Amino acid sequence: PQQADDAFPATQQIVVLSESLAATQHQIQALQEQYFDLFNNNKILVNEVVSLQKMVKAQSQVSNELITH
Amino acid sequence: PQQADDAFPATQQIVVLSESLAATQHQIQALQEQYFDLFNNNKILVNEVVSLQKMVKAQSQVSNELITH
Amino acid sequence: PQQADDAFPATQQIVVLSESLAATQHQIQALQEQYFDLFNNNKILVNEVVSLQKMVKAQSQVSNELITH
Repeated sequence: PQQADDAFPATQQIVVLSESLAATQHQIQALQEQYFDLFNNNKILVNEVVSLQKMVKAQSQVSNELITH
Repeated sequence: PQQADDAFPATQQIVVLSESLAATQHQIQALQEQYFDLFNNNKILVNEVVSLQKMVKAQSQVSNELITH
Repeated sequence: PQQADDAFPATQQIVVLSESLAATQHQIQALQEQYFDLFNNNKILVNEVVSLQKMVKAQSQVSNELITH
């Protein structure tokens, strides 16, 4: 049989593949954690921008009142 | 031949690896979709911040005119 | 032995798996680069928002002084 006589037999190739796949899965997990951090940072930033929009809108009304008086 | 006589033969190991790789690819696809959503959210946020910058700049000019008059 | 007589032998299945895993790793690398770009964009946006917050706060003080005078 072909596989058993290979210089680099199937079983060894499978070990290499398994290790490579495990490393790949660790990379994905790290990327998922980084994504989650960025998602949360983005959420905080959205809240900050919404607060700023309210402040700027309120200041715009104050300015308009100052101009018309 | 070594493989065929293993307790857990190469063919079965290959099936396990294939399934594990398929699961890994689904994780990546999910992560790509999450990334795409976050990318679009970031784009919206950039536009909101640019709008705010214009409003704040305009209000700054109004304030300066109110001060000098 | 079972594997050697398969229509699609173990060695060929391992080649397919190896190629599929390599493609998966390229996808992860691309996703990591996209994540890094988005992370940097988010960082710039945070700085812009912090600047805006300072400007709006300063304008708010100016408005208050204009009102009380």
